[in-house]
Amino acid sequence: MGHFSAEYLSDYCQKVMVAKGVDAACAKVVAEVLLDADLSGMSTHGVSRLSIYMERVEKGLVARGNEIKVLQDGPSAIAIDACNTLGAVVTDYAMERCIEKAKETGSCFASVKNSNHFGAAAYYAKKATENGMIAFICANLTPKIAPFGSSEPYMGTDPVCIAVPSAGDPVILDMALSTVALGKLILAQKLGKEIPLGWALDKDGKPTTDPAEGRKGSLLPIGGAKGSGMALMVEVLSGILSGSGTAPHLHDLYAFDAPQGVGHFLGVIDVAHFIDPDEFRRGVSAMAAEIKSLKKAEGFSEILMPGERELRFAAERAQAGLDLPDEVCAELNALGAPHGLSLKEA
Amino acid sequence: MGHFSAEYLSDYCQKVMVAKGVDAACAKVVAEVLLDADLSGMSTHGVSRLSIYMERVEKGLVARGNEIKVLQDGPSAIAIDACNTLGAVVTDYAMERCIEKAKETGSCFASVKNSNHFGAAAYYAKKATENGMIAFICANLTPKIAPFGSSEPYMGTDPVCIAVPSAGDPVILDMALSTVALGKLILAQKLGKEIPLGWALDKDGKPTTDPAEGRKGSLLPIGGAKGSGMALMVEVLSGILSGSGTAPHLHDLYAFDAPQGVGHFLGVIDVAHFIDPDEFRRGVSAMAAEIKSLKKAEGFSEILMPGERELRFAAERAQAGLDLPDEVCAELNALGAPHGLSLKEA
Repeated sequence: MGHFSAEYLSDYCQKVMVAKGVDAACAKVVAEVLLDADLSGMSTHGVSRLSIYMERVEKGLVARGNEIKVLQDGPSAIAIDACNTLGAVVTDYAMERCIEKAKETGSCFASVKNSNHFGAAAYYAKKATENGMIAFICANLTPKIAPFGSSEPYMGTDPVCIAVPSAGDPVILDMALSTVALGKLILAQKLGKEIPLGWALDKDGKPTTDPAEGRKGSLLPIGGAKGSGMALMVEVLSGILSGSGTAPHLHDLYAFDAPQGVGHFLGVIDVAHFIDPDEFRRGVSAMAAEIKSLKKAEGFSEILMPGERELRFAAERAQAGLDLPDEVCAELNALGAPHGLSLKEA
Repeated sequence: MGHFSAEYLSDYCQKVMVAKGVDAACAKVVAEVLLDADLSGMSTHGVSRLSIYMERVEKGLVARGNEIKVLQDGPSAIAIDACNTLGAVVTDYAMERCIEKAKETGSCFASVKNSNHFGAAAYYAKKATENGMIAFICANLTPKIAPFGSSEPYMGTDPVCIAVPSAGDPVILDMALSTVALGKLILAQKLGKEIPLGWALDKDGKPTTDPAEGRKGSLLPIGGAKGSGMALMVEVLSGILSGSGTAPHLHDLYAFDAPQGVGHFLGVIDVAHFIDPDEFRRGVSAMAAEIKSLKKAEGFSEILMPGERELRFAAERAQAGLDLPDEVCAELNALGAPHGLSLKEA
């Protein structure tokens, strides 16, 4: 276990990326996105991803610089070709352009094609809420979810994020449309535990309680036809509207056969174009207070808003610093070693 | 059972509404929305609702004319006060304005406050897809869904509709975020059947298999925290952004204490501002074909796209005409009787 400040880790990650030829401005955005995830307790999307990002860069599967091309630039619509730029770089760019345009017009959306893994969506969503806007972000990935009525995967465990400002912290819903994340099957398998029916199908399309069989098969969407339909719409928005292609036509982050080619779709709604922003912020906070004062369900001592746990964790970690597992420290040191860089504890 | 053409029923409904003092243009929109639902097999949202709509109009709880006020009118944002106009009238207006603006800017969204039940969302969504646009529509209603971690209802069984054009029929996802519709509990109770765990909580917040107890309690959202978070975002968009208020601050369609005061949020994304519309349409149809050719899950002989069943039914009914249950015929005759109107079979 290593203990570090977020600033130190961000700086270290940037130095590693720059040493490997990544453009400094791109490295800065990627580091910020990774650290935001670690601070929020989403360590699966934090600095533990730097190693795979750099492996792809060094294999020539991801561009080292910002090669973004804007294909169409309307008052409230931007079509972007990422040209294989790092996912965080193009997503951050798209979000900033949407915010800028929506200030004038009231709303703006961007499609992005030929992109890469963008990390955790909440980072970009917070840029919107800090500007008094409502954010919507989604992206597609290789197939893992079986459409309703099918026993084979088609849609990715595509992230969907919706975030709104309040008088206090923003409310940030950031999720996949599968009943559970693939990580829960991996963990159950490690612990030798069964999984409940309804999480996964085996490779023959039969419901399974064996996590190993589920990993070979497909994950089930939330709410049957409902979550399936939503995941399909995410494929349409991220994959077809952008021109990237749907999940089966993309490439896996952990395969080295080709650029990922994933698509994103994101945008913002400017609250001020609809209602007094202070009234809106107070309204969201009042709703949260009303919900928190409802009777708790059995087994719950508190009702949380979407994203509340992550924001609390981030506030603590910003003060106390981050603990990284030895495996992640070793990875970061291995990345730095060829360039004379190594982690130093705080 | 009565058998009628859709045109005849639409005309009859309009005559009834006009006889009761509803503005003719408003009556036309309401009739179209109701008939579209009946044609699509969604008879819960069809002409069987005319009676409650008219009861509210006659009690002075809904305006007879179009009293819509546009509060803010941006290039890609419209804030509307329905001023208690019939829900279909203001939603149809909002959708048409969004389509018109998005042709110029690429996207446009509208908020609507002080509105009423708008029927089935698919009607408005089809206007967008016919114009080569992607539609998003939601609305809020009185509380019925318990937030994750709570045992009391807060969010309504709020409709959420997303629709996209294809080379053939549009793909139309139109759903509530509860595991099942309240109607399934009513039906189970009528048939004396138990409901599965996971559908509802009783009034003490305990999971129940008794549909009668579930009706007194709350419905559970799909996917636990995920569906709960989405329903909460629908409340924010329809209720807070519009200025209407969240579900507990609204009034029920079947109570006569006050205008419903519900909110809507809807908008469109213009495909042509992102990608060649023909490429998009072909992409959606190709995705549908790929999904339909996947291996079927146990018990399925076909994999359907969202909305496919309804569109097929509508194509048949447009030819064959509609069958209305005796109860609905009696209601429609009772509505017409004071004005010398009665249904005549085809």
